[in-house]
Amino acid sequence: MHLLVIGGSDAGISAALRARELDGEVDITVVLADAYPNFSICGIPYYVSGDVTDWHDLAHRSRSDIEALGITVVTDTAAERIDVADHEVTARGRGGATIELGYDRLVIATGARPVRPPIAGIEHLGPAEGVHLLHTMTDTHAVMETITGRRVESAVIVGAGYIGLEMAEALCTRGIEVTEIEALPEVLPTVDRELAHLVRDELTGHGVDVETATKVTGIDVSSGRLSVEMTGKAAGRERSAKTGRATGRATGKATGGRSEQVADMVLVVTGVEPDTTLAGKAGIDLAGNGAIVVDRRMATNAPDVFAAGDCVVTHHVLIGETYLPLGTTAHKQGRVAGENAIGGDRCFAGSLGTQVVKVFDVVAARTGLRDDEAEAAGFHPRTEGSIADDHKAYYPGAGAVHVRTTGDAKSGRLLGVQMIGAIRTAVHKRIDTAATAIFAGLTLDELSDLDLSYTPPLGSPWDVLQAAAQRWVMPAG
Amino acid sequence: MHLLVIGGSDAGISAALRARELDGEVDITVVLADAYPNFSICGIPYYVSGDVTDWHDLAHRSRSDIEALGITVVTDTAAERIDVADHEVTARGRGGATIELGYDRLVIATGARPVRPPIAGIEHLGPAEGVHLLHTMTDTHAVMETITGRRVESAVIVGAGYIGLEMAEALCTRGIEVTEIEALPEVLPTVDRELAHLVRDELTGHGVDVETATKVTGIDVSSGRLSVEMTGKAAGRERSAKTGRATGRATGKATGGRSEQVADMVLVVTGVEPDTTLAGKAGIDLAGNGAIVVDRRMATNAPDVFAAGDCVVTHHVLIGETYLPLGTTAHKQGRVAGENAIGGDRCFAGSLGTQVVKVFDVVAARTGLRDDEAEAAGFHPRTEGSIADDHKAYYPGAGAVHVRTTGDAKSGRLLGVQMIGAIRTAVHKRIDTAATAIFAGLTLDELSDLDLSYTPPLGSPWDVLQAAAQRWVMPAG
Repeated sequence: MHLLVIGGSDAGISAALRARELDGEVDITVVLADAYPNFSICGIPYYVSGDVTDWHDLAHRSRSDIEALGITVVTDTAAERIDVADHEVTARGRGGATIELGYDRLVIATGARPVRPPIAGIEHLGPAEGVHLLHTMTDTHAVMETITGRRVESAVIVGAGYIGLEMAEALCTRGIEVTEIEALPEVLPTVDRELAHLVRDELTGHGVDVETATKVTGIDVSSGRLSVEMTGKAAGRERSAKTGRATGRATGKATGGRSEQVADMVLVVTGVEPDTTLAGKAGIDLAGNGAIVVDRRMATNAPDVFAAGDCVVTHHVLIGETYLPLGTTAHKQGRVAGENAIGGDRCFAGSLGTQVVKVFDVVAARTGLRDDEAEAAGFHPRTEGSIADDHKAYYPGAGAVHVRTTGDAKSGRLLGVQMIGAIRTAVHKRIDTAATAIFAGLTLDELSDLDLSYTPPLGSPWDVLQAAAQRWVMPAG
Repeated sequence: MHLLVIGGSDAGISAALRARELDGEVDITVVLADAYPNFSICGIPYYVSGDVTDWHDLAHRSRSDIEALGITVVTDTAAERIDVADHEVTARGRGGATIELGYDRLVIATGARPVRPPIAGIEHLGPAEGVHLLHTMTDTHAVMETITGRRVESAVIVGAGYIGLEMAEALCTRGIEVTEIEALPEVLPTVDRELAHLVRDELTGHGVDVETATKVTGIDVSSGRLSVEMTGKAAGRERSAKTGRATGRATGKATGGRSEQVADMVLVVTGVEPDTTLAGKAGIDLAGNGAIVVDRRMATNAPDVFAAGDCVVTHHVLIGETYLPLGTTAHKQGRVAGENAIGGDRCFAGSLGTQVVKVFDVVAARTGLRDDEAEAAGFHPRTEGSIADDHKAYYPGAGAVHVRTTGDAKSGRLLGVQMIGAIRTAVHKRIDTAATAIFAGLTLDELSDLDLSYTPPLGSPWDVLQAAAQRWVMPAG
């Protein structure tokens, strides 16, 4: 039995490791297009910030750790063709030589690629000019080369999602002047604006220039620096004050309905799309957005071909099939694919879209559905906001946790929770309690009934989530 | 409708508040024996330590907050007799005057009282000599009077449960030399010794002298100081080195099979027992240990009489009726009693014995059953230990979380989790995820499948609990 895995990131390596864990004999090969098997892509901002000093440390496991398990790792080799009838993959190495890799079972884990938004000029600009997409270790090395090689003092980040915000912190930590631009009305559009504005406050409090409801329309190079053109809110108001910023490094000016921001580097981080050209060419079923269609066993429509991670449709516990690329999900799906590829019969339990991001000293997290998402999924949602201290106020260091709780008005079922608080309020693990409750189908009443831990320095007799549940059940006035 | 509540601590006040929340009209009176309604007893160590400077701040709510809701609060008035047939309570004020309080519905929330262990001499010693039990605000004031009045430089704590450990930290924080004595083989006997020894290390690392497997047999007063006699492990080994301790304040010597520790203050904190003399005299059913027998609605066998908190038997989700006095449980049971007393029909969902304690910089937590408890309850338990970092090791500050996971070998159901780690590892909220999973009846496989949050500075793609679950399912070696 030979298991072939295409892709060496979270899903691919998880599949290989699970297969090996269950079967010491099966022959396993992982082929990947770059030189970085099993790297923690989520860790990139912390290498850029300097928190991680050696990029090698970003590997979940080293190549030799993986090889020590008897897994063959073929790097710098891009799969170009899958022959599903003949059970064969054609791949090309850096030198141009092609190899044929046969398989009994195949796991496709080709991941996602960054979206290129419609920005004029972007097609001619790249790392050489200081314009970067950021998704892989190769991209990361290019960014670091720009930062040091061009002595970057100012940067524009296009996109204020998770990676954009983490990179804003990272560049700021390096002493770079950051302008963060988001087309939507608030940063971190994956949580409600009632909470997300607290993330914006954290950014501006650390000196990040945040421009929301602002669209980048073009990027130009002039005398070695980059000029970012934008329309929208930032352009509509007076920006002349900006030119007088303390450092004077990043400058902006407004003309008519447009404005312009000059910077040494531009990062474009506006989301990803499934990277499934290979699967599509092989005749494997793709969804409307291009993601590979898989069942709960992570099997594709092609015989003996499984797929997992950012390249597939994801089963969501509350809404069924969707597209929701996340590292945690990739690990889980990869594990299921690896088990089933060697003859197992496990189902992917489903995602809740649980996510958390640290932005300086603040943590924002969510799990399940927001009000509009729940409505769209056919629920009868109601969402209530609440605030409670993470621990008894009499003990020093108590901090507010802001919560938004979504439940189904008909059944009383918990559908979603969003939270924000300082790092020390443990929002990142409080959200897990909510995720577990949603996964188990608990009602808001049951959430209030849970036997959660309490000691005054670390909690309250009624936990933040229970206070939120009680508020949902009996909204104030 | 007149609701009378006997007891002004967590259960009693929760009952009154819930009744008021649901019904603005019902007449509510809370009668309590001391002057401290709604005080956070769990907060006492943090007042003693000096973290809380004003003891008034330990109140969850002030008396006037409660009265502002139209709840009558009668302090310093001890209920002496319940006439269940006539629906009348006789109580006596400090001055000796008796009052008769009629009721339509009664909630008994008389709590617990500290156990007095069989220590020779203890019956003649009290606060005047520097010997204290510690359970109420009155006790707390007495302890503080001893500490300041007697200029306490050394203290012996008898009992290394939650309160004993918190008080060891508190006294240590005040600069007092602490000897912590526990009859059982390890401190914090509510968690497995494999973990509890880490708490001992934290205590000794902060200069606390810890003597386990050591029984206090007597306390004597000699020349104004207290002499604590003990037998067991501490007495069996050479203690002469102790007399040379840096401060020279606390001194111990060994003679034969006994040893002696001299100190300025002794705290006896060896657990509590239900305080139900009143209920017993009224003919209300008591369990073998003296706790009031209640159903899931918190109703006693007497008509219109409910009971809640440390004075009642507690329904445990996994083992049924037991006795497990905890502040969180008292709040929940009180809330149920208050709702049902005014005509509601809610059940107490049950306890899992979820507990957490902070000892200096370490946090220990548990929920559900340990191996022996599960065995006794008829399960087929297996317990596995595991260790994982709280977040990706490449990001600074990662800390080990030590876990012991108990599951049922037949069904795969999660039965219990114990955890210990540094404060920043968020053990206190990780245990809540386990509590939620147990409450919902999840298996270890399902725990591994949960969609929990991840970002490198705060977690791993597989959470600590998921790694523990996977280790349980496939034990190493």
